[in-house]
Amino acid sequence: MEKETTIYDIAERLKLSPATISRALNDHPAINHDTKSIIAATAQQMGYRANMFASNLRRQRSNTIGVIVGSLTSSFMSSVLAGMEQVANEASYNLIISQSLESAKKEIANARTMFDSRVDGLLVSVAYDTDSFDHFEPFIRKKIPLLFFDRVLTHKQCTSITIDNAQAGYEATSHLIEQGCRRIMHVTGSLKRNVYADRLAGYRQALMQHNLPIDESLIMVTALDREAGIEAARRLQAMDNRPDGMFITNDFCAASSIIALQKLGLSVPNDVAVVGFNDDTVAQIVAPQLTTIHYSGITMGEVAAKSLINHLTGVQDILTTNRIILRSELVIRESSLHGRVRS
Amino acid sequence: MEKETTIYDIAERLKLSPATISRALNDHPAINHDTKSIIAATAQQMGYRANMFASNLRRQRSNTIGVIVGSLTSSFMSSVLAGMEQVANEASYNLIISQSLESAKKEIANARTMFDSRVDGLLVSVAYDTDSFDHFEPFIRKKIPLLFFDRVLTHKQCTSITIDNAQAGYEATSHLIEQGCRRIMHVTGSLKRNVYADRLAGYRQALMQHNLPIDESLIMVTALDREAGIEAARRLQAMDNRPDGMFITNDFCAASSIIALQKLGLSVPNDVAVVGFNDDTVAQIVAPQLTTIHYSGITMGEVAAKSLINHLTGVQDILTTNRIILRSELVIRESSLHGRVRS
Repeated sequence: MEKETTIYDIAERLKLSPATISRALNDHPAINHDTKSIIAATAQQMGYRANMFASNLRRQRSNTIGVIVGSLTSSFMSSVLAGMEQVANEASYNLIISQSLESAKKEIANARTMFDSRVDGLLVSVAYDTDSFDHFEPFIRKKIPLLFFDRVLTHKQCTSITIDNAQAGYEATSHLIEQGCRRIMHVTGSLKRNVYADRLAGYRQALMQHNLPIDESLIMVTALDREAGIEAARRLQAMDNRPDGMFITNDFCAASSIIALQKLGLSVPNDVAVVGFNDDTVAQIVAPQLTTIHYSGITMGEVAAKSLINHLTGVQDILTTNRIILRSELVIRESSLHGRVRS
Repeated sequence: MEKETTIYDIAERLKLSPATISRALNDHPAINHDTKSIIAATAQQMGYRANMFASNLRRQRSNTIGVIVGSLTSSFMSSVLAGMEQVANEASYNLIISQSLESAKKEIANARTMFDSRVDGLLVSVAYDTDSFDHFEPFIRKKIPLLFFDRVLTHKQCTSITIDNAQAGYEATSHLIEQGCRRIMHVTGSLKRNVYADRLAGYRQALMQHNLPIDESLIMVTALDREAGIEAARRLQAMDNRPDGMFITNDFCAASSIIALQKLGLSVPNDVAVVGFNDDTVAQIVAPQLTTIHYSGITMGEVAAKSLINHLTGVQDILTTNRIILRSELVIRESSLHGRVRS
C-alpha cells in the first residue's frame, strides 16, 4: 500500500508549520478562513485522510455502533436499519451491521466480533432461538451500552425499545371478535421471544374478556414465512369446526395465507377474517387489503440509535431508562370486515 | 471508561510471561493446547479484547468494507445486503453501511466518511441523480478497490456487477408483444442510471424488431414508487388510444399500478397486461400474480463482497475484471397472460 499522506507532507507543500495544518484541519478558531480553505483543498488533493484510527485509539472510541438483527431481508428490519442509519450518519457514527440468520450460535459469534471491533455501543434484536444472555455479558462488564429493540432480552442494565405487544395483540383479537368472529386461529412465532409471547397473551386476554373459550389447537407456532401462511390456511380449511378468523403476527405470512385461503375456495373476509401485524408494504398490495397493527420501523430505529448516541455523548444516561414503549395502532382494511360484509 | 485489560494483566494473573500470553492468543504452535485453553478462558473472563485497532493500524488495514446504497428500505437492496453480510461475516470483515437516500449530495458525504473511516474497499450502488465520479477519485488515487453493483458508474479501474439490463428489457417487452400487446407503456426511473437506460434500450429494440412504432409519450420517467404506479394507471386510462400493456421496471410500483388499474375498472391482464422487474416478494402477493424479471439480490451481494474480499486477500486481482454480468430470467405469471386469457 502506498504511503499515507500526513500533516507533515501538507505542511512541507504549503510551507506552513505542521501545527497550523493540524489546527486548520480541526477547524481551530485561531486559523483564518482563507488559510483553512487552502489547507483543506491541498489536503484533499494530496489524498489526506483524517487519522480517525489513531485518534480513536487515543480516545478509546471507535465512533462505530454495532447492530445485530435476525435477518436483513425482513421488510420491517430494513425500515429499522434505515432509521438507525439516518440518525447515526447525522451524528457522524458508523454503523456496523450483522445478521444472526435467526440462529443463537451465529448471534454469539456476531456479538464477539462486535466486541473485538470495539463498538462504542450495541443495538440488538435477538434471534428466534436465543435463550441466554451470556454472550452479552462482556459488554456489561466493559460498560459498553447495550440496547435491545423489538425482540428484547430483559436485563437490569439494558434498555429495551418495543411497542406494547400484549396491548396490540389484544386490540387485533378484539377487533376480530367485534366483527363477529367466534373461533380465531392465532399464527405466531417462537414464544421464547417477547414479541410473540406478548401478542399471544393479548390474544388470550381478549378471548377471556369476551367469554370465548381458548382452544390451544388454534394456536400455531411457526417460522412466520410464506410456507407457514399456506400451511395455516390448509389446516384451517381441514378443521371440522372451521375458524372464522385468523390473527397472524406477520403481514407477509398473513398475505400468503389469504392467497392460500382463496385458492382453497374460501373467501376473505366473508368466510375468514384476517388480521396481520407490522403494516408492511405488502398489506396494501394483497387483495383484499390487510387489516394490521401499524408501528413504524423507521421510528424504532431512530429512537434506538438516538438513545444510544445521547448516552455516548453524555446528553442523557440511558442506564436510568428501563424500557421505551413506542406507539402502535390497529389499521382497519378490508381483510377483516367480517360482520359488515356478511350483513 | 475503565482500563483496558492487556496481555500484561493476563500474564500477571496466570504467572506466565507476556510473550506466552501473546503467542497463546495468536494460536502459536509452540504453546500447548491446555495452556491455550486456560489463557483463552482467563482472557475472556477478564474482558480482554483482541486489539484489532492497534494491529489494524500497524497493518494499515481496517478489515471493514464500506457499502453505499440508495435506500435501505428497498426490498431488492435488503437482499443484496444480506448476501454481502454473509460473505463478509464468514471472511471476518465488518460491513459499514450507509444510504444516500437517492441524493448525490449525501452520497458525496458518505463517500468521504467511508474514506476517512479507512475502509479496505467500497461497494456502491449510486443514487438517482449522481452525475460525477469526483467523490470516488480519492479511492482510486489511494488504490482502495471500488466496486459498483446494480446501479453502476463506468471507470477503467472499477469493476461493475450487473445483470444484462438491455437483454432483460428486451425479453420483458418481447413477451408482452407475443401476448398480443401492440401499445406498451414503459414506466421507469432516472435515465442517468444504467439500469433504467439499458432497460429502455431493450424496450425500444423489441418494438423495432417487431415493427411496432415507438411512441415517446408512452415512456414515463418516475420515482418508481407507489404514487408513480397510481399515476401511470391514471394516465393510461385517460389515453384515447389506450395502451394494452405496461412494462414497469420495479415490482412494487407495478403492483401499485395493477391495483390502481383495477380500481379504475380495467382488468389485468385482459385489458392491460403488466410486467414488472426484480421478482420481489410482492410479485407473488399481488392478484393477479406479477410476471417479472427475476434476478437474485442475495447472489449479487455475495458476488460483490466475494470479489472485493478476494482482491483484498490477494486471491484474485479485481482490477483485471471490467464487468461481471449475472443471470436474469423472465418469470411468467398471470399478470401478462393477455392473449391466452383473451382467446
